[in-house]
Amino acid sequence: MSNDVHVLVDGSVTCPRGFRAGAVFAGIKPAGDGKLDLGMLASDQPAAVAAMFTTNTVAAAPVVLDRQRVARGGPVSAIVFNSGNANACTGEAGVRDAERMAALAAARLGVPAEQVLVASTGVIGVPLPMDLIEAGLARLDLSPQSGHAAARAIMTTDTRPKEIAVQVDLEGTLVTLGGMAKGAGMIHPNMATMLAFLTTDAAVEPDMLRSCLRDAVRDSFNLVSIDGDTSTNDSVFLLANGLAGNAPLRRGGPGAERFEAGVRAVCTELAREIARDGEGATHLIEAVVSGARSDDDARRAARAVVASSLVKAMVYGLDPNWGRLACAVGYSGAEVDPSRLTIAIGEVTVARNGVAAPFDREAARDQLRPAEVRLSIDLGLGEGRAVAWGCDLTEGYVIENSAYTS
Amino acid sequence: MSNDVHVLVDGSVTCPRGFRAGAVFAGIKPAGDGKLDLGMLASDQPAAVAAMFTTNTVAAAPVVLDRQRVARGGPVSAIVFNSGNANACTGEAGVRDAERMAALAAARLGVPAEQVLVASTGVIGVPLPMDLIEAGLARLDLSPQSGHAAARAIMTTDTRPKEIAVQVDLEGTLVTLGGMAKGAGMIHPNMATMLAFLTTDAAVEPDMLRSCLRDAVRDSFNLVSIDGDTSTNDSVFLLANGLAGNAPLRRGGPGAERFEAGVRAVCTELAREIARDGEGATHLIEAVVSGARSDDDARRAARAVVASSLVKAMVYGLDPNWGRLACAVGYSGAEVDPSRLTIAIGEVTVARNGVAAPFDREAARDQLRPAEVRLSIDLGLGEGRAVAWGCDLTEGYVIENSAYTS
Repeated sequence: MSNDVHVLVDGSVTCPRGFRAGAVFAGIKPAGDGKLDLGMLASDQPAAVAAMFTTNTVAAAPVVLDRQRVARGGPVSAIVFNSGNANACTGEAGVRDAERMAALAAARLGVPAEQVLVASTGVIGVPLPMDLIEAGLARLDLSPQSGHAAARAIMTTDTRPKEIAVQVDLEGTLVTLGGMAKGAGMIHPNMATMLAFLTTDAAVEPDMLRSCLRDAVRDSFNLVSIDGDTSTNDSVFLLANGLAGNAPLRRGGPGAERFEAGVRAVCTELAREIARDGEGATHLIEAVVSGARSDDDARRAARAVVASSLVKAMVYGLDPNWGRLACAVGYSGAEVDPSRLTIAIGEVTVARNGVAAPFDREAARDQLRPAEVRLSIDLGLGEGRAVAWGCDLTEGYVIENSAYTS
Repeated sequence: MSNDVHVLVDGSVTCPRGFRAGAVFAGIKPAGDGKLDLGMLASDQPAAVAAMFTTNTVAAAPVVLDRQRVARGGPVSAIVFNSGNANACTGEAGVRDAERMAALAAARLGVPAEQVLVASTGVIGVPLPMDLIEAGLARLDLSPQSGHAAARAIMTTDTRPKEIAVQVDLEGTLVTLGGMAKGAGMIHPNMATMLAFLTTDAAVEPDMLRSCLRDAVRDSFNLVSIDGDTSTNDSVFLLANGLAGNAPLRRGGPGAERFEAGVRAVCTELAREIARDGEGATHLIEAVVSGARSDDDARRAARAVVASSLVKAMVYGLDPNWGRLACAVGYSGAEVDPSRLTIAIGEVTVARNGVAAPFDREAARDQLRPAEVRLSIDLGLGEGRAVAWGCDLTEGYVIENSAYTS
């Protein structure tokens, strides 16, 4: 991370001033030790909001509702969320349930219902158990200490929570950013299938907030692939409540770049954690594409590499079968000249000018053993560069997704 | 199949008049019982040719060579082929090797080298062992009885050969079509990763031959997905030597529709066999999309369903988790109105108007038990229809592709 971004120890979404969270086990998921499945994230002061949602045309009810509320420009006082049920493919009744869930949360906080957003994740096609949600919300308490509990309450097949908080110094004013996310399966660019919540106490102009989130998502969550499926529920939220007291940030203005670096750092870390915790994964794969004709081309090529089942299986099998990398960039849509490809597995260059380089097979295998594996492809055509993240494909993924109704 | 298309018992590419084939074990693949890895398919009379190749920009050397030769319009006297080595990512030396392989085959047949096409499949990035190929071709004999041997010589991780022959009656003249294909892995629309060879003794005008192959491939091989990877070597060839003596077929002319039905039948059967024999597969999945705004939209939606890892894992796990089907058509790019979706698993309707229909879970599970599983999605928007084929995702796929350098 850049020197301007300071990572806090044990960070969470409630690190920025004026944010509180809470979570309970409402019984939406099957019971289990320490499980949480219903939560809320609230700002003491109505916050400016930027958000991005799934590109799937079969969008879940909360996405339908949130899109309208965000389009109106906010402000947002809270996000109420649950895991275990996606409230997707639930028709008009599902939208009414999402509205009611927001209204119940708003009543607890004493804010207008339109200031509450909703996020759901879990099984598709089953009505939300509103009785459990109502009872759960009645028991839910908010505190600045409960950020970690909130991060656990959005988990489905995730094996661990994904959280971070950072601080950036805006010429004298210290602002804090927090983030949490869930991933694990149905994860593919165009918004990794996931929920991500970002908070900040910075004051930020609406335009700046939106462009900043869009750019950070493009280079982080949209460059993660677990299994190629783009879910019905993907949502990323960024709330900015202004309690740090800085002069509102605007594009190109003082402090803008530092704040952008902070948002980018939070998104990148959460994206990496989502890839690392992919269903059944034993390796985080980082695909670094350089020498592309453009950054867009580099993103296409890097995404194709981490999305390839054959590349994923090769990493799992510790097999330095670089032809699969050449094949993936070849169908990625990026401009590729086969005779200019240079490919490295970790530190070992395995192909140069599109043909095999002499390399020690065992040394290349050793580069695939660590928990984090780097695959580098230089297209040899320009200055475009991108990094994408994925995970290996293991028997564990198959077992998890053939036995779990998610 | 249509009543006009008669399937021959024990059919192969040498069923049409004037085609001979041969295959040997040259030692390109590791040795094994009855393994073959080098072969040739020849026409006694130079044949008209249509062909389609991979869209991957990292195209293998034989594809580079064949594209030029097919673009010149043929005619073609033979295709020489090998398995065990893809001759891909082998640079200019690879193209010279492909040319030499064609020249060696041409010399054996006594035809001009430009009349020979080449196909290779196997590991990427390793130079072709030309000494083995030269020695193998010297031992290779051609006969009309060796079609089955040729089909085995193109196999890589395929567990069985894929072959068919059909006859159609063109107003008194009986013409025969034969076909063989290999698939197994690196299989995804835009030419399933595969080789397919079609032969016919019909006389066909060049325009008709090309359009006929293009339409049949669109509705067969391009609607198969095993793992989402589009290979460097995909090639489909159709040779027509005219020895049946019919008046040359032209588009819209007499007999054209019957011949087209024959080509379509051969391609569809081979495509289904490729899906059924996907690496590690235990189920053939047939996704039937109807009610789409257009046939193109239906093809997009059907492809997305068979390509979805989550759908594939759900079939393997006998889990009637229809939300994954709704999710897949939602991100397919087809026009979808969630409130109009009707979804059936086999004979059991599981969703109607986009929401869960009351259904018996065990009955739906039972629909997933047979070796062939049908998933039907009616988009409720128009008359567009398509069928796509895939296979389930099993631990076997992961094991095969993490341990096998292919």
